[in-house]
Amino acid sequence: MRLSETDRLEAFSDGVMAVIITIMAFSIPTPDGSSAAALRGLVPHLLVYVLSFAMVGIYWVNHHHLLRATGRISGSVMWSNLFLLFWLSLFPIVTAWVGRFPRHALPAFCYGLVGLGAGGAYSFLVRMIIRVNGTESVVGRSVGTDTKGNLSIVLYGAGMALAFVSPWIAYALYASVALMWFVPDRRLVVQAADTTEPDDS
Amino acid sequence: MRLSETDRLEAFSDGVMAVIITIMAFSIPTPDGSSAAALRGLVPHLLVYVLSFAMVGIYWVNHHHLLRATGRISGSVMWSNLFLLFWLSLFPIVTAWVGRFPRHALPAFCYGLVGLGAGGAYSFLVRMIIRVNGTESVVGRSVGTDTKGNLSIVLYGAGMALAFVSPWIAYALYASVALMWFVPDRRLVVQAADTTEPDDS
Amino acid sequence: MRLSETDRLEAFSDGVMAVIITIMAFSIPTPDGSSAAALRGLVPHLLVYVLSFAMVGIYWVNHHHLLRATGRISGSVMWSNLFLLFWLSLFPIVTAWVGRFPRHALPAFCYGLVGLGAGGAYSFLVRMIIRVNGTESVVGRSVGTDTKGNLSIVLYGAGMALAFVSPWIAYALYASVALMWFVPDRRLVVQAADTTEPDDS
Amino acid sequence: MRLSETDRLEAFSDGVMAVIITIMAFSIPTPDGSSAAALRGLVPHLLVYVLSFAMVGIYWVNHHHLLRATGRISGSVMWSNLFLLFWLSLFPIVTAWVGRFPRHALPAFCYGLVGLGAGGAYSFLVRMIIRVNGTESVVGRSVGTDTKGNLSIVLYGAGMALAFVSPWIAYALYASVALMWFVPDRRLVVQAADTTEPDDS
Repeated sequence: MRLSETDRLEAFSDGVMAVIITIMAFSIPTPDGSSAAALRGLVPHLLVYVLSFAMVGIYWVNHHHLLRATGRISGSVMWSNLFLLFWLSLFPIVTAWVGRFPRHALPAFCYGLVGLGAGGAYSFLVRMIIRVNGTESVVGRSVGTDTKGNLSIVLYGAGMALAFVSPWIAYALYASVALMWFVPDRRLVVQAADTTEPDDS
Repeated sequence: MRLSETDRLEAFSDGVMAVIITIMAFSIPTPDGSSAAALRGLVPHLLVYVLSFAMVGIYWVNHHHLLRATGRISGSVMWSNLFLLFWLSLFPIVTAWVGRFPRHALPAFCYGLVGLGAGGAYSFLVRMIIRVNGTESVVGRSVGTDTKGNLSIVLYGAGMALAFVSPWIAYALYASVALMWFVPDRRLVVQAADTTEPDDS
Repeated sequence: MRLSETDRLEAFSDGVMAVIITIMAFSIPTPDGSSAAALRGLVPHLLVYVLSFAMVGIYWVNHHHLLRATGRISGSVMWSNLFLLFWLSLFPIVTAWVGRFPRHALPAFCYGLVGLGAGGAYSFLVRMIIRVNGTESVVGRSVGTDTKGNLSIVLYGAGMALAFVSPWIAYALYASVALMWFVPDRRLVVQAADTTEPDDS
Repeated sequence: MRLSETDRLEAFSDGVMAVIITIMAFSIPTPDGSSAAALRGLVPHLLVYVLSFAMVGIYWVNHHHLLRATGRISGSVMWSNLFLLFWLSLFPIVTAWVGRFPRHALPAFCYGLVGLGAGGAYSFLVRMIIRVNGTESVVGRSVGTDTKGNLSIVLYGAGMALAFVSPWIAYALYASVALMWFVPDRRLVVQAADTTEPDDS
């Protein structure tokens, strides 16, 4: 038997996100000593790693629910998906940069830029899936006005601007986006469960 | 045809663990020379790598048996699983740190902390799976009192405390946790075999 | 049930390409400072990363369509596929090299060489698949004269030669190859859709 | 539907090998300059990378054929498989070491040691699979006297000893092992094809 196109797309995306999430841990440098001070130097690296891990984890969970509910894919869906993965692949770099310069505006600004790019790419992917599957499809009916997506963009934009006032405000706003997305879109989950076969083997 | 939710969760977790286990080998630095002395300098790196490889390997085998026996997953199972992967993703860093400072207390302490975190996250994942599938499910009936899980936490805790007496005691205790888990939970394997279709094609 | 040989080959290739595409982002160094100048220093790294990401992404999409349309594989197909992955695995190195020395001829030349090798290996893989499946198979009927493949080789060759005049001409020619392949072979997609079952679950 | 145990084991192994094969390319350092001399400095790194890529590629192909022909797996098969992956995961380190000190005996010796370990672990895995599936199973009937496996061990051993005479003799012997395994075990392939369903979708 052959896997479906959607399974294949999901498997590749899962692979990329698995590598991103794991490799990001390498932005945490091995401490140069074994003292408590050396460990304290890791704290900003650890904190931004937790945030980035949560971010990519959230994308994985939502992407998973999205593709579960998707029947049909097309070339444009594949390319939009690659575009999302491109933005996610920049997370390790901004994570390492913020970990090294947590009190500076520019790394905090760029972190938000990558988050904004990923958020925009995700919204674009959703729209491409709806274009192929129709507004009456499971995804089409569930997404609706995409309040969370729009609010994310506002919060990222505000964080980027306020990074030049204080990077800590920016981090707080980025973390609030993560918290907001923590719960996957309930309607999508429920409707997907209604339309696909039960998962139990 | 579409893969089940559980297959997908397992595939993503397998991907993350595959990357962790492989990338951890990079904590072993390329020797600076080609003499026997340069090779001897690798010995602590190699030993802790063997321990960490065994640790992640054990998680992979047990996680595999656990999800095999799992019929139904939910959002909370997905997040608990990500929480486990988060702790596992910290293994490469503590492995590199212990490899560099094997005679110091703090790296040995932090190694145990990561092990404790992963162990706690695994127990939490088991409990989430039981909450979704019921105490009468395969997992529910098999896990029971979770003696091994509780004993692991005691051994990790003891190792962390005794790391400040001697890191070697800590390593011995961590290695004994690995040995204890080497054999997967027999009841889970047997019962899973009873309830799933035969694997032969 | 067991997955088909083709699914397995595709999964392994997807894994390798997922790692390549993600790890390539590590060719972008963490900036040494947090000033705008430090960020400007990343620009060549970012630009060549975008090009390489597009390149590997294009290979992924086309490889995916190719294997979708492939019924039967053989040892020679597996080895040709590994040969393609070998060339793709060199992309991160030339990407890092060009990012560091964007104004020099030799890195630009080698980038084209890797692109040429990957392009040649892909054409070879297509021919091996046709040899196993017959010229009357889906792949056999679709590929035909392989105009795009031949044109790519000409463009890469021209880029490599002109890299010694100006690396910017080389980059322009390489980017034009990427643009040309952006759209997957329509006939392959359409015919594959005709011969495989619908993907909807 | 659920994937079979064997599919899952193969997927995890594929993931690990995909990461190993890709990450090994990182043992090739980015040249410090853009001159022809800087490129010439890469030649030993490139040559040993080609050898190691071929080695891991051969393991992937043979492992694939082996698990294709395997009906039933057990805990001991899973652990033997992890033991094989452990040895394969050391390839990137010896590859980087030989690339840096190609004219020295000790790195050449250790390269052979890793090859020997992987070869021994593979033979052990085959024996574990036969123990679970019986000597009358597809794998049991195909492997027989395992001439190639035994010859590999002799060649690796000879290479390791002769590395102290000249590393080039060692490399020649290791490369001859790779060439010998280039063709997968025909009997295994043919018999597996007889006993599994056709792969065409």
